Amino acid sequence: MHGLSEADLGLILLALAVLIGAARLLGEIARRFQQPAVLGELLAGVVLGPTVLGTLLPEWHHALFPGDGAKAVVLEGIGFLAIVLFLLVAGIEVDLSTVWRQGRSALKVGILGTVAPFLIGLGGAWLIPEALGATPDADRTVFALFLATALSISALPIIAKTLMDLNLYRTDVGMVVVSAAIFNDLIGWTVFALILGMIGGQGTGWGICGTMVLTLAFLAVTLTAGRWLIHRALPILQAYAHWPAGVLGFVVTLGLLGGAFMQSIGVHAIFGAFIVGIAVGESSHLHERTRTLLEEFVSFIFAPVFFASIGLRVNFVTNFDLPLVAMILVLACVGKVAGVVVGALWGGLPARQSWAVGFAMNARGAMEIILGLLALEAGIISERLFVALVVMAIVTSAVSGPLMSWVLQQRQPFRLASVLSSKLFVRNLAATSRHEAIDELVTLACQHAAVDPVRISRLVWEREMVAATGIGSGIALPHARVDGLKNAVVAIGLSEAGVDFDAPDGQPAHAIFLLLTPQDAPTVQLTISAKIASIFRDPHALPRVMRAGSYTEFLAALKILEPQ
Amino acid sequence: MHGLSEADLGLILLALAVLIGAARLLGEIARRFQQPAVLGELLAGVVLGPTVLGTLLPEWHHALFPGDGAKAVVLEGIGFLAIVLFLLVAGIEVDLSTVWRQGRSALKVGILGTVAPFLIGLGGAWLIPEALGATPDADRTVFALFLATALSISALPIIAKTLMDLNLYRTDVGMVVVSAAIFNDLIGWTVFALILGMIGGQGTGWGICGTMVLTLAFLAVTLTAGRWLIHRALPILQAYAHWPAGVLGFVVTLGLLGGAFMQSIGVHAIFGAFIVGIAVGESSHLHERTRTLLEEFVSFIFAPVFFASIGLRVNFVTNFDLPLVAMILVLACVGKVAGVVVGALWGGLPARQSWAVGFAMNARGAMEIILGLLALEAGIISERLFVALVVMAIVTSAVSGPLMSWVLQQRQPFRLASVLSSKLFVRNLAATSRHEAIDELVTLACQHAAVDPVRISRLVWEREMVAATGIGSGIALPHARVDGLKNAVVAIGLSEAGVDFDAPDGQPAHAIFLLLTPQDAPTVQLTISAKIASIFRDPHALPRVMRAGSYTEFLAALKILEPQ
Repeated sequence: MHGLSEADLGLILLALAVLIGAARLLGEIARRFQQPAVLGELLAGVVLGPTVLGTLLPEWHHALFPGDGAKAVVLEGIGFLAIVLFLLVAGIEVDLSTVWRQGRSALKVGILGTVAPFLIGLGGAWLIPEALGATPDADRTVFALFLATALSISALPIIAKTLMDLNLYRTDVGMVVVSAAIFNDLIGWTVFALILGMIGGQGTGWGICGTMVLTLAFLAVTLTAGRWLIHRALPILQAYAHWPAGVLGFVVTLGLLGGAFMQSIGVHAIFGAFIVGIAVGESSHLHERTRTLLEEFVSFIFAPVFFASIGLRVNFVTNFDLPLVAMILVLACVGKVAGVVVGALWGGLPARQSWAVGFAMNARGAMEIILGLLALEAGIISERLFVALVVMAIVTSAVSGPLMSWVLQQRQPFRLASVLSSKLFVRNLAATSRHEAIDELVTLACQHAAVDPVRISRLVWEREMVAATGIGSGIALPHARVDGLKNAVVAIGLSEAGVDFDAPDGQPAHAIFLLLTPQDAPTVQLTISAKIASIFRDPHALPRVMRAGSYTEFLAALKILEPQ
Repeated sequence: MHGLSEADLGLILLALAVLIGAARLLGEIARRFQQPAVLGELLAGVVLGPTVLGTLLPEWHHALFPGDGAKAVVLEGIGFLAIVLFLLVAGIEVDLSTVWRQGRSALKVGILGTVAPFLIGLGGAWLIPEALGATPDADRTVFALFLATALSISALPIIAKTLMDLNLYRTDVGMVVVSAAIFNDLIGWTVFALILGMIGGQGTGWGICGTMVLTLAFLAVTLTAGRWLIHRALPILQAYAHWPAGVLGFVVTLGLLGGAFMQSIGVHAIFGAFIVGIAVGESSHLHERTRTLLEEFVSFIFAPVFFASIGLRVNFVTNFDLPLVAMILVLACVGKVAGVVVGALWGGLPARQSWAVGFAMNARGAMEIILGLLALEAGIISERLFVALVVMAIVTSAVSGPLMSWVLQQRQPFRLASVLSSKLFVRNLAATSRHEAIDELVTLACQHAAVDPVRISRLVWEREMVAATGIGSGIALPHARVDGLKNAVVAIGLSEAGVDFDAPDGQPAHAIFLLLTPQDAPTVQLTISAKIASIFRDPHALPRVMRAGSYTEFLAALKILEPQ
């Protein structure tokens, strides 16, 4: 075959740019609607793939994402590398020691949450394989094992993200969920690796048994001797090599080597990278900064490329089979939620928390989609079933958070940005005195909130008379609790010259936050003022905020300063 | 052509793992010998390429790095992506405003440092093209322009790194060098883009003139309107999208788009990515964390892949032509150093500093190699000249730092690790009192330094009697200046229980550093104690150091804590 022409190289860059750009954009839009970013990333592929672009503008689609030829091979290779690195990072996030610490209740949830959907999947696939989307020439045992695994696996990254969003990650419920999911994933991926070995092992000269033995041996050796060696090697690299380059290069090299080994014995590279990731992540010597560097670059650049490229492969409209989608969805949810809830009750959790654990573990997310794609490539499942699995993965992930917060009555943690508005922001206060500053902000706030400025002004001044609201470090927080107000109103004024708010440190206030909160919600005002005070405790915070020339820049500065 | 087989995918991962692993390893070894890491990375390619592995084990070489077929295409595509991202990052590091701030002297250095080697290269190439390695069918004008550009370009990343290593980056000399190099690079790359346009433009339908006009237009538009738009867009992304994912995806997408555009008009993608990088880097809204994330991942993973893959292309032994190498080296050094020194003297710098600027700007590094590779691919130069250019780039980079430090009598900044030794480290001090602790460390230090322990003990105690050396935060620094000692000796003892060193904060000392310094070098002791005190001012430092179970882990912890 021929190499890449100059024009090919240009089109490859364009294709990658379009994939990354569209995936990130739709990923952000998904997040706006409280959905996982992976949903938007998949959608980008659907838009750019045969489903939309290929139907509307087939020539464009073909020029950017051709089905064969040198360009297609390069994009396939980059997509493959992306998924291997993504699983390496997913492995690093797994913390095996959590499982041991959580002990029995996690184990019970893990076991029942794996076995119940597995048996349901196995039974269904054995009884009605064609109705569930098996290809006509697929081996019945292989198909049944695959579907069973697909229904029982869960998605650690999505689950962890949902728990963090709900401020539940470090709670008991959160830890039970995470450790059960880790257990679940380890079993699920091992079974899946063995299934792939049953298909791929035949072609490699190892045979099916050889492949299975090698897979289990790799798992055992990497998680014991390998883990020990990595734990020993990391401080040596940190001490004597450039940091973080040394550790980063070492981890990526090991992940690729593990992937290459698994691939060579007929399983799939991602399994090798995942196990290496677990072994690396276990070491307490892996520094937070290296972890973040690897995770963020891979999650924000490689993962979008991979997930968007999934949509390029399949037409999601012509392969959408409603009865199949519904059947898969019901089988998946019933098996998983029932198994987990029973396991959690058995493990001694209260009913409400057991249901929360069930909804949490039901999220399938990215892992399901990867599993489905491998099965599609291996010829085990039809495109219709693949589409059904993707839809199931998205739906279960999307409803997981809302159902949990509903059953636990848990709220999302407060973020300052949620109560701010560009209409309530004055970049340069005209005021030079405390009186003028408060008047200026009260006038602005009252236009927005439709309350009487005279009354508000009086309330704020009554409070100000008790004690001045300059809290030091250049910040002032004049405030009042207002009868009849529905939501908190925060008006912000910045002043280069500063306004004297009689702060304990004698500094004039450069950033003045007027807080008006509902009379009947006494904690709101405390939450907001505590948040502002904690942000501006950092001495770099005020100068950074004061550099902002507009509301957007102000918000950008606050976002980086507010701890996640 | 056919897609990738399962075995191909495995071999691609293996090839990448071997490339990254070898490149990082040899890169670290190069750094040990005070050489730029890129030297080791290139060497990794030479070892794995036709020069060594291809000669010794041709089957292995062919299996891992085949010359054609699907695997070769994927590796070529990944290498291409790597260099585009590397130039995007190199562009981000360019700070145009520095050039304006430095004003005339930088401009004079920049102009003469570009024009002198350019004229020498142009003249030489015009007079004796074959002797300088032109291919027989190369256009004489194109070849002369190329060689002129190759001799006049400099390597901003290597230069910046050398200046930082010598603690000169923020000095006047450093800023003159950096801004002259930026000027130099902008001119050099623009000329080179135009040369490529002269060759590539013919094939694209734009024609040579069309390509040149589009290149200059892209440069102008990106650095004015593009820069303004990016500066406006970044705070919006930071404020409303996930951070740093939003900004990271945006920057990478823009860089790839710029690359795709330049590639499509027949120049080369790296030029587009470089210009986009400059426009992005100019924005004060680009947060340090995003910059670091992108720079580190690209420099530590993608760049090694690219530089190692260069060695895969050419046999560096059979194409090594000593007379040609010598001639290129002499032409390059004479033209550049003479031009820069004259420019610096003209700009008003003292003679010694002018020479330092000359040696600094003489480093060619990675940029030269990239330029040479593109010319090789475009058929302008022979493999012999390419090898000569690579050798010239490496030699000029390697001698740059030593020559500068020699002419300026500048020393490398002090690093604590340089005075420590595993032989002078006690993980668990037996001592429970100040007396015992000092005795234990003095005994150890004296075995190592061959001085009399009785005398040292007396000196340390004399000092201890004046005032106790517990400096608080769990650190003690007993010390003495010793007559006849050649080098500083630092013995370290850690104690879980702590030893009372009468610190002002009343805390017992957990990390005790015994400092013995030469009598005739009074500043050494101050430098070391100031460094230790500054490290342990961070309240997280002591707990982290105390987690170390061995000297290597202790050193690893210190390295991360010591500001770079």
